Parts: sequence; C-alpha cells; structure tokens
Amino acid sequence: MSTPRTYREAGVDVDEAERAVERITRAAAATVTPAVLGGIGGFGGLFRFDPGSYVDPVLVSSTDGVGTKLLIAVALGRHDTIGVDLVNACLNDIAVSGANPLFFLDYLALGDLRADVVEEIVGGVAAGCAAAGIPLIGGETAQMPDLYRDSHYDLAGFAVGVVARADLIDGSRVRAGDEVIGLPSSGLHTNGYSLARAVLLPETWSRPMNGDAATIGDALLEPHRSYVDDLRALRRALRSGGGDIHSLAHITGGGWEGNVPRTLPAGLGVDVDTGSWPVPRIFTLIQQRGDIADEEMVRTFNVGIGMTVVVAAGLVDAALEAVPDACRIGRVVEVPQGQPRVRFA
Amino acid sequence: MSTPRTYREAGVDVDEAERAVERITRAAAATVTPAVLGGIGGFGGLFRFDPGSYVDPVLVSSTDGVGTKLLIAVALGRHDTIGVDLVNACLNDIAVSGANPLFFLDYLALGDLRADVVEEIVGGVAAGCAAAGIPLIGGETAQMPDLYRDSHYDLAGFAVGVVARADLIDGSRVRAGDEVIGLPSSGLHTNGYSLARAVLLPETWSRPMNGDAATIGDALLEPHRSYVDDLRALRRALRSGGGDIHSLAHITGGGWEGNVPRTLPAGLGVDVDTGSWPVPRIFTLIQQRGDIADEEMVRTFNVGIGMTVVVAAGLVDAALEAVPDACRIGRVVEVPQGQPRVRFA
Repeated sequence: MSTPRTYREAGVDVDEAERAVERITRAAAATVTPAVLGGIGGFGGLFRFDPGSYVDPVLVSSTDGVGTKLLIAVALGRHDTIGVDLVNACLNDIAVSGANPLFFLDYLALGDLRADVVEEIVGGVAAGCAAAGIPLIGGETAQMPDLYRDSHYDLAGFAVGVVARADLIDGSRVRAGDEVIGLPSSGLHTNGYSLARAVLLPETWSRPMNGDAATIGDALLEPHRSYVDDLRALRRALRSGGGDIHSLAHITGGGWEGNVPRTLPAGLGVDVDTGSWPVPRIFTLIQQRGDIADEEMVRTFNVGIGMTVVVAAGLVDAALEAVPDACRIGRVVEVPQGQPRVRFA
Repeated sequence: MSTPRTYREAGVDVDEAERAVERITRAAAATVTPAVLGGIGGFGGLFRFDPGSYVDPVLVSSTDGVGTKLLIAVALGRHDTIGVDLVNACLNDIAVSGANPLFFLDYLALGDLRADVVEEIVGGVAAGCAAAGIPLIGGETAQMPDLYRDSHYDLAGFAVGVVARADLIDGSRVRAGDEVIGLPSSGLHTNGYSLARAVLLPETWSRPMNGDAATIGDALLEPHRSYVDDLRALRRALRSGGGDIHSLAHITGGGWEGNVPRTLPAGLGVDVDTGSWPVPRIFTLIQQRGDIADEEMVRTFNVGIGMTVVVAAGLVDAALEAVPDACRIGRVVEVPQGQPRVRFA
C-alpha cells in the first residue's frame, strides 16, 4: 500500500460529501422560517431574534446525543427516526425551563459517508424540527473513517430557546402537598440502551411484540416524545386557573433519581404511586428477561413517564384536562436530610 | 458470560461518570460570567441576553468537531488542547459574520469514561471559553462503549453569538480591486488530518521539528488559533478609517477553494500571491513526505492562512497595523463564469 497523495486516497470522499451536503441543504430548507437569514456561505446559522416579545429574555440551550440507540438504528438499517429522537431530547431539556424553542443545529460524524444514509438521518432531524416549528439552521457532517467503524456514526444536537425571565420555571414555587403529574413516554426515549441492548440481544429484535409495537426492534426504536406542545397546553390551562407549573423534570440519563430531585427545593422529595400509569411493554420485557431489580429499573429508565410536572393540588384537574394522556402519579413530601428523595410505593 | 442485571454491568460506570461531572462542573464554573443564571438542575444552560446592546439582533450559531486531530491527541495521551481547538473552530465560524460570541456548549462521547481524561478534555474547552471571555453553559458527556473503541472519543461544540443586523458581514461590499489580507494559522487547525496522518505516520510524531515546534506531534497538535480578538481590532481600525471588513473566510474543511468563493459575490474571485506569507514547516513536511500536488494542498489545508479578510485597497495599511502578523496576500478580481475563483500565482 502506497502513501496516499490526495485527501480522497486518505479515505475522505469529497464528492460523496458534496452529494450529502446537497441533500442536507434540501432537508434543512424545508424547515426555514422567516426568522432565518441566508448569507455568508453558511459558516454560521443566522437567526433574527425579536427581543420585543420577551421582557428580560433568557436564552436556554441544550446539547444531547441519542446514546447507543443509534446502534439499533445501524443494525436495523433504519436511520429516519434517530434524528427525531435527537431533536426531541434537546427540546424537552429546554422546555423544562419554560422556554420556547428557537432553532436547532446537528453534528453528524460517520465512518463511511454515504449520501443516502446521511439524507435519512438528517431528514429525521429536519422532520423533528418541522414538527416543533423551528428551523435547522446549521450542522456539521464529518467523515472520520479511523474513529467510526464501517457503518457506525454518532449524532449530537443543539437547541436554543428563549423565555422571559419572569416566566422561568425554576422549582422555587414547589411546596409539600403539591401533586405530581406524569406525561407518558413513548418507550425508552434515548436512555438506558446499553443495558437494554445487553438484555435484548439483536437476534430478538425482529420478534413480534404484543401490543404497542410490531416488533421488539420497533419498540426499541420508537422515537423520543416531544413534550413541547403538551407543556404549552398545560401551562396555559394552569395560568388561566391562576397558577403555573411549579417544576418539571425530564426523565433522561440517571432515571428518576437522577432527574427529579434536582428540580425540587432542598428538603423536598416525591412519593410516587407505582401502578398509577401504564408501563409500556418494552420495559416489562427488559425487566423480566434481564431479571432487573425495580430500583435499577427506575435508576436507568423512565419506565413509562418521560416528564414529571409538579402543580398545586387544586389545579390537578385542570392539568389533566389539558393533556389527555397525563396521569396523576404522586405528591411532593418533606424528606429528612440523607433520605431518598424519590420513593416508590 | 451472564446477562448484565445493572446499568453498570452493561458497561456504564455511573460512579466514574459522577466524578467526571464534578470535574466538568468545576471547569465550567471558572468560565461563568454575570449573564449566566443558575437553576433547574442544568437541563438547559441559561444565559441572560441583553437585547439593548444590539439593534435588530441576529443570533449566529455554529457547530463543529475537531476531526481526526483527536486521534493524535489520543495516541499521544495529550487531551488538554483539543478542547481549545474545538472552541476556536466554532468561534471563528461565527466571527465570519461579524458576531460577538455569547456562550458555548460541548458534546463529548467516549468509549472508556475516565474522569481524569474527561477533565483534561473539558478543561481545554473551558480554557478556550475563558480566553474568549464566554461561559461554557452546558454539555453532554456520554459513555458509549460499543461505539467508541477503548480510549477513543469524539467531541463536538456549539457556539452562539450575536450581531446587530446592520453590522453583519455578508460579502455584499466586496468589489474587484479590493485587497485580500491573510491572518496566519498556527498549523493545520482542525482540517486535513486524515491526509496528514496517512503521510506522517505515528512513529514520526516524536521526531524533532526544525523551527516552530519541538516535535512533529507538537506541530500536529498545535491548537486552532482564534481570530476573535484580531477581527475586533481589525474592524475597529477599518471603521475609524471610514470603512469596514468587506468579507471574511474561515479556511476550514475544503481548504481555499471550499471556503473563499462562498464569501464573495458571484463573478468575483481572488488572485493569491503564493509566497506572500510564511508557511509553517508542518505543511512543507506533509507536502514533501507525501509528494502532494500544490492544488491538493490548498484544497485540503489552510497552508498557513486561517482567515482571509477582504478590505478596500485604501485601508490595507490600517488593517495590517491592527493585526501585527497579518499579511497582504492577494486581491479581488473579476472571474468569468466557469473559471476557478481562487488562483494561486
């Protein structure tokens, strides 16, 4: 093997990259809103910000990946929903502050750059953006053959939103006696896949699921649900009842323990009523096949609730009416120092 | 081998991840500015935006990675500068629009999560942010043992900046007869590493370099230079002379051809005077060892100029005075359709 004399010979296919960029550009163009400015060759994405709509605006931003869920997408050759996962994981993170999403960017790194695969992946990102009404204003597609094996890739996303400072949801209004509402998850979302894949091996993915999904693979790939619209409806309902959302937790990496306590004031915790919401079959399957303890399940997975919402007890009914599939799942309690702040009963 | 019953047994070390998060938090804390708001457990980074300072503000954002430069960092076990590369690659992309950087987020995915390595990497990101005076307000650290081999990782960054719409640099002022100034690069920056690594094999990296760096490895790892301060000084000088920057190109992936033309109006191109700037020795070495054609060099590498600046001919001296190591490297010319828009003579 002789030393390469061009970038192409070194494993970087510049022409295929250009084909990929064309398709990405087309996908992104479908998400453009009037706030997006063109120009200067796309080094940076340009978004016209109208500060008039927000008193003391706070920009809220989040970055996330989709974890090893993408190894399932790779194994099944289905790349069109992993981008939706990415967008919704990030949007839910910024929604927790009460922010409205403004725009999105993605980073995609691949071993083998194939324009059709890139198109599927970024098409999913664009679809997620379009569903949320925000533009995909930038991105990077990098071919790194020595870092990623053959068909492997990684995908990271970045969302920016805005909220008026007075509208920030920061947990300060939470009181003992408040109620906890759960917004159902569509499945694992984007967390716990290293354990899920170790328990449900690839040869099981084509097997039929009873109930919610056609196959185990389908259930594992079910996209991360966005709570942006749900939370908007919920907040509107609570405000017209004279209240507001007291606190939100996005149940992501670290499960319930890792996410609920950090959204509550010190000294407060949550008593959760196990059985008060429907648990998607994929969780039961993972737990049974893996003989996994209940405590490990809720430390690793969302087990059916992707977002918890704390509201004043008097406004629970209004909240439940605003989001039809929301469930009343527990309440805020005082917790002595050193005791667990999330208890399942 | 029995089926794992916990997330840890599935290869995710939750405790080491917590140690890593502690160190990341410490590194990020050193970059905090008064605009950063704490709160709600870090699902999203909160940045108070003062729209008063910008008439018709445009948010400019960019995402980038560092390419396979990180394989050199991994091989040499030196992880403390790759984060500086990441920040500066992104900041230069938004500076091209004339934007001031506001804040930064990073995404780090690793095979083997070791808190000390994470600390080095994110410490570099924080150092880059601190040097630019912006906060690192968010990030994601993901352990994905089945996607990344042993000590491998990938790193992506996201920067957001702002510019008043009237101050956007969009190339519309460029005219034939304008001069082109080059801002020196510190080396390869973050592009062309797949070719560089194929030509300069790992066994050469400990060999001494004549001149600018101690070893070839040092020269390859030299951090991406930030042009944020240079461009600020340059713009101030030009404006006090009654002019402004007409156009900027960040010489990144795609080299000169891939980046200069897209910042110029149609029908215009650039005649570059080869030899008008000092070429760092690392480029000469790569070209000689790889027997690489001149055209391939400028299509793949920055070859010593990381940013090109187009200014009116009458203001070149003011520009050169503002950035002491800037070089006058060419001029804007009319180019008939179908002809190359960057010519080296």
